[in-house]
Amino acid sequence: MGRSAGTVKDGGAPSTGGGSDCRSGLAGALAQAASQLRQARRVVLATHVNPDGDTLGSALALAHALRASGSEAVVLSQDGVPDIYTWLPGAGTVLTQTESRDFDLGVVCDTGTLARVGSRVRPAIEAARRSLCVDHHVAEGDFGDIRLVDSTSASTGEIVWHLLRSMGAHLDRAIADCLLCAIVTDTGSFKYPNTTPATLRIAADLVERGADPAAINELVFENRSLASLKLLGRALDSLQVSHDGQIAWAHVRARDYEELGASDEETEGIVGHVRAVRGARVGLLFREIPGRKIRVSLRSREGYDVNAVAQKFGGGGHRLAAGCSLDPPLEEAERLLLAEAARHL
Amino acid sequence: MGRSAGTVKDGGAPSTGGGSDCRSGLAGALAQAASQLRQARRVVLATHVNPDGDTLGSALALAHALRASGSEAVVLSQDGVPDIYTWLPGAGTVLTQTESRDFDLGVVCDTGTLARVGSRVRPAIEAARRSLCVDHHVAEGDFGDIRLVDSTSASTGEIVWHLLRSMGAHLDRAIADCLLCAIVTDTGSFKYPNTTPATLRIAADLVERGADPAAINELVFENRSLASLKLLGRALDSLQVSHDGQIAWAHVRARDYEELGASDEETEGIVGHVRAVRGARVGLLFREIPGRKIRVSLRSREGYDVNAVAQKFGGGGHRLAAGCSLDPPLEEAERLLLAEAARHL
Repeated sequence: MGRSAGTVKDGGAPSTGGGSDCRSGLAGALAQAASQLRQARRVVLATHVNPDGDTLGSALALAHALRASGSEAVVLSQDGVPDIYTWLPGAGTVLTQTESRDFDLGVVCDTGTLARVGSRVRPAIEAARRSLCVDHHVAEGDFGDIRLVDSTSASTGEIVWHLLRSMGAHLDRAIADCLLCAIVTDTGSFKYPNTTPATLRIAADLVERGADPAAINELVFENRSLASLKLLGRALDSLQVSHDGQIAWAHVRARDYEELGASDEETEGIVGHVRAVRGARVGLLFREIPGRKIRVSLRSREGYDVNAVAQKFGGGGHRLAAGCSLDPPLEEAERLLLAEAARHL
Repeated sequence: MGRSAGTVKDGGAPSTGGGSDCRSGLAGALAQAASQLRQARRVVLATHVNPDGDTLGSALALAHALRASGSEAVVLSQDGVPDIYTWLPGAGTVLTQTESRDFDLGVVCDTGTLARVGSRVRPAIEAARRSLCVDHHVAEGDFGDIRLVDSTSASTGEIVWHLLRSMGAHLDRAIADCLLCAIVTDTGSFKYPNTTPATLRIAADLVERGADPAAINELVFENRSLASLKLLGRALDSLQVSHDGQIAWAHVRARDYEELGASDEETEGIVGHVRAVRGARVGLLFREIPGRKIRVSLRSREGYDVNAVAQKFGGGGHRLAAGCSLDPPLEEAERLLLAEAARHL
């Protein structure tokens, strides 16, 4: 693992809050975390709310290893297991809460903010005698007696891979499936900028142990509601370009949501297709969500800062991905935003 | 590399046509190929017609290494370099033909059939004093004095990676970009079933040498014509499911092609979105190409054989991907094909 905020609040290993000694801090946290997991007889593991493949795959992989070594492991996900992850080995054992408060160790995967496990899961974690956070979001919270946090990892699953090896656990097919799902989810199948040589090498190891990247891709990414695909269709049918093709935009109208019985979550991913127009430097998706303001998603290619555009309308985000809201009507929102987007070309 | 048809037709290394000795045959072909490339002072390298990222990336990577060692290397691509690959280092040096017939070695990348380099490129390859085929399509042709053919490699780029190492070449950033493009193209960014641990480990090495998987993905896959995206939109707007959602289908109408000024090539990839409907076992795309028969693309998930369906209409393909043609009108073609598809559920 790389540089990051590996710390042990009360352990014997060196604790570092940053600086040049991070690597050894992380190694210390790794050893401490492995030691705690080996010692604990009853462990509760929590995912964050609105769980994705990384938080679920990481928690389940740890649970498999703990159960294989004779320990008890309870995995809690307040929002359950989304349909596209029910195939994960062990998904059927995930609970949305537990009455038990008798745990040696509480583990939170993929967030450092205890509140993000949800109010019904939190009490069991808080009651555990010791706590461990395994996460790759360095700026998120400070939960955990032991904090195994590495922002250079593309996914929490990669950190769990190191952790399982430190524990001396056998990485069987079930664990390999869970961890490859975690990695594939958080790297968009190795296509996001967070993908590193280490990500690819860990994935190679997991494929060698039986995990199937093609099958996982199909289960996670090619498994969409009919309404979401039809929304994508309507949005792309509205696709236009301007300013010599440098700006591409599309919209989803209120009547599209209504006719398809679709929710706004089902527009996820559409803006990526808008930005995919050859020659476009920025892609915009306008969503006329019934009864709400016009929501705009902005995505750009390297060299164009959409955050600056979004901020003009009280929104924000990152250089390559941002969002903002404008008052209806749709046509006026489009006119205003396009004018501002053109100023930044 | 794994098992395959590595052979040396006239070399000193062991030649094998298959059987249990394939590995050593491949190793022999690798050593012979490296030796020939090191000795040759003038090399001509050919891609196949309708070139993709694998054939171009492989040929250019070899050309970079040859030029770095002081040899002359001419890369020929009869159909030039498609827009989405012009960023490849060295793409500007690619010629569509050459008058020269004075080459020590002719190398064909990513096909074993000489005809597939195109009639204007073929004479230069044929006139070369020796020939080398580097390919991962084992059943395709038998071109080459030395045949470095490995069907266990997901891409020709992976074989070139081994070859460059056998040559003792320095894999610089330009070569890494070319080879990662080859791998990403042929594995769909590590999401096709051909992805192996070796694929991922070679990719890790290339990323370490500076190749950027996110940038390459964006250049290759998120770089689509406006018409192709609008065609996708219209097709998805027509999306329907039947038989408890197990069959999903969509169509592109003649008027869609006409109104968008789109060619049939621009429908590539649409059927993958059709199959992506949650619960669908098979996805069908009907293309009403103006003045032609109705073309049908069929894609399925594991457990449903679309080849059997396509064969009923005189078409064919593989278990998970097939195609066939039916007479117009569109509605009748849809009715016939859906009835047959339902029989195979």
